[in-house]
Amino acid sequence: MTFDRRIFNFAAGPATVPEEVLKQAAAEMLNWQGLGASVMEVSHRGKEFMALYEEVLQDLRTLMNIPESYEILLLQGGGLGQNAAIPMNLMGLGKNGPKADFLVTGIWSEKSFKEADKYGVAHLAASSAAEKFNTIPPRSTWQLSDDAAYVHYCANETIGGVEFPDVPDVNGKLLVADISSNILSREMDVTKCGVWFGGAQKNIGPSGVTIVIVRKDLMGHSMKITPSIWDWAKQAANQSMLNTPPTFAIYMAGLGFKWLLKQGGVKAIEKCNQEKAALLYNFLDQSSLYENRVTKEYRSRMNVTFFLKDDALNAEFLAKSNAAGLVALRGHKAAGGMRASIYNAMPLEGVKALVEFMRDFERRA
Amino acid sequence: MTFDRRIFNFAAGPATVPEEVLKQAAAEMLNWQGLGASVMEVSHRGKEFMALYEEVLQDLRTLMNIPESYEILLLQGGGLGQNAAIPMNLMGLGKNGPKADFLVTGIWSEKSFKEADKYGVAHLAASSAAEKFNTIPPRSTWQLSDDAAYVHYCANETIGGVEFPDVPDVNGKLLVADISSNILSREMDVTKCGVWFGGAQKNIGPSGVTIVIVRKDLMGHSMKITPSIWDWAKQAANQSMLNTPPTFAIYMAGLGFKWLLKQGGVKAIEKCNQEKAALLYNFLDQSSLYENRVTKEYRSRMNVTFFLKDDALNAEFLAKSNAAGLVALRGHKAAGGMRASIYNAMPLEGVKALVEFMRDFERRA
Repeated sequence: MTFDRRIFNFAAGPATVPEEVLKQAAAEMLNWQGLGASVMEVSHRGKEFMALYEEVLQDLRTLMNIPESYEILLLQGGGLGQNAAIPMNLMGLGKNGPKADFLVTGIWSEKSFKEADKYGVAHLAASSAAEKFNTIPPRSTWQLSDDAAYVHYCANETIGGVEFPDVPDVNGKLLVADISSNILSREMDVTKCGVWFGGAQKNIGPSGVTIVIVRKDLMGHSMKITPSIWDWAKQAANQSMLNTPPTFAIYMAGLGFKWLLKQGGVKAIEKCNQEKAALLYNFLDQSSLYENRVTKEYRSRMNVTFFLKDDALNAEFLAKSNAAGLVALRGHKAAGGMRASIYNAMPLEGVKALVEFMRDFERRA
Repeated sequence: MTFDRRIFNFAAGPATVPEEVLKQAAAEMLNWQGLGASVMEVSHRGKEFMALYEEVLQDLRTLMNIPESYEILLLQGGGLGQNAAIPMNLMGLGKNGPKADFLVTGIWSEKSFKEADKYGVAHLAASSAAEKFNTIPPRSTWQLSDDAAYVHYCANETIGGVEFPDVPDVNGKLLVADISSNILSREMDVTKCGVWFGGAQKNIGPSGVTIVIVRKDLMGHSMKITPSIWDWAKQAANQSMLNTPPTFAIYMAGLGFKWLLKQGGVKAIEKCNQEKAALLYNFLDQSSLYENRVTKEYRSRMNVTFFLKDDALNAEFLAKSNAAGLVALRGHKAAGGMRASIYNAMPLEGVKALVEFMRDFERRA
């Protein structure tokens, strides 16, 4: 299947990038800011790139309303890299040795939990594994430790399509939030967590750059074994340039931030995201062919998972949706079924087109 | 200073990318392979990107003549990341506990040496620090350990401009080669080292992807604390996609490999690199204004460092060369002076233009 036009891309990440961002990147690919070179060719330590870098941070600070008491780091290694980096930087703050609590609500928080086990005691404070990660365990069942350095949770589980409606209440303990798949999609009170982290490849731009927002007093407690590139204090002292940063990915993230500012910022895009998600979930709920299996209050606005009641129709559904230019709807192999990822850059018209297609498919099925 | 044309960019990395590579990337930015999406928007696990990925590996295998007994990994974190990853993966092979030998010939191998110290005994087998990293210590002075897991060296020191003319003789011990700044610039017998690694941002494409070429029997010995994303065996079992890879950087590296194949491969580009370096060094050697301070046989073909005999002329030299479209000649702050990085993508005409400018500058000085 080939297209001579842009399609609606429901991939879970890497994901859709706004068309105007791609156009700008293409237009200045050979000569950025009149330097006679691409942004990817210039020195990261040169004044032009450093100016860009500062602007990228400032735009993110504006968009998320990040106070000066928090540092913004742009690192490499993705969320899975931070799954190792976070325990190495923070676990040592545990009262009786390295320890952290984990709320496991899907495959991503489960990965975080397992990775942390290499660096100290990873304590499973709550898990919805028995419910196939279709929900969030009731608050009353969480078993938080007194001596853990922090509590880790994943704000949005990309694979299951489960999202925390708000920052969880952990009795004032230090919280670490994985926001890989809902960063900038909704308003978040940054002061409620000590660390926020996530890759850029869902709501921001291409893969290859990881955003870590960390309260400044939490830096400087790293274990000796922490790789320098992930030692938050060292990176903060070097503008995240202890080694060569992924300059093009940072530039693209910056274009993504500018685009979002132009849309009216996070508050405006959140409204749009609510509308897109409501459209799709309302359609699913009235359908007799499709169903979403997530507890209603925890349904993700970003990753809408659904199943056809007859699995035998899956192949036809995927082939026809793809032919209609509605691409990458297959669910993650660990979950099965379908998944429509509708991040910031997915326009409302994309979701409308999907619902229309699904309605039509149901009628003919 | 702004330009309406492409300049000659002597930056040490990120560095020049071939113009035709940039043109292709720009042309297919909005619609790659007729998918109706950019390569940076599609799933890394989709069949189109996986096909690209396999082709990228195959092209590198062809270019470097990498035998099937070696795995190629495309990772995140740069050379500095591998400075931590390599000890975590290999140091445990030491006979009496984690230990490795280091040949320190510049700032990069010194960084590798220091980082390794976190994970075991880092033994300084040789160092040219006392010679300001302007040379390689004589082979007879190296103190290799009997119980080290491996010997680490940096094939080309970007900052000092010092390059090993061949893979060093270490009495058959296991060698690890940092080829961040001379990968693909000259023929290398891959079988002579157990591990070769380097970032892409000098001889290949943009920053953000790290190439690790590792003999298969050396995988599977990682320490428990090894972050999953750097556990070579885990990544090899997952086509380097244990987490989302930097897809656009990989795509650009692939375009770089195609470009190099079109130039005739490594043998052909090596000839060109020899010619470029000879032109510049011969000019420096006959000049009474400029001088290179590196032992002749260890002069780098990639990073040509030089000093003006009168430091007071530095600012004028930089301003005038920049105005002439010969950009980024300032030496690294740790070394001072000037540096012309002339990687694969720097055309001979760029070096000719530089020599012409320098000759003219000398005449007027």
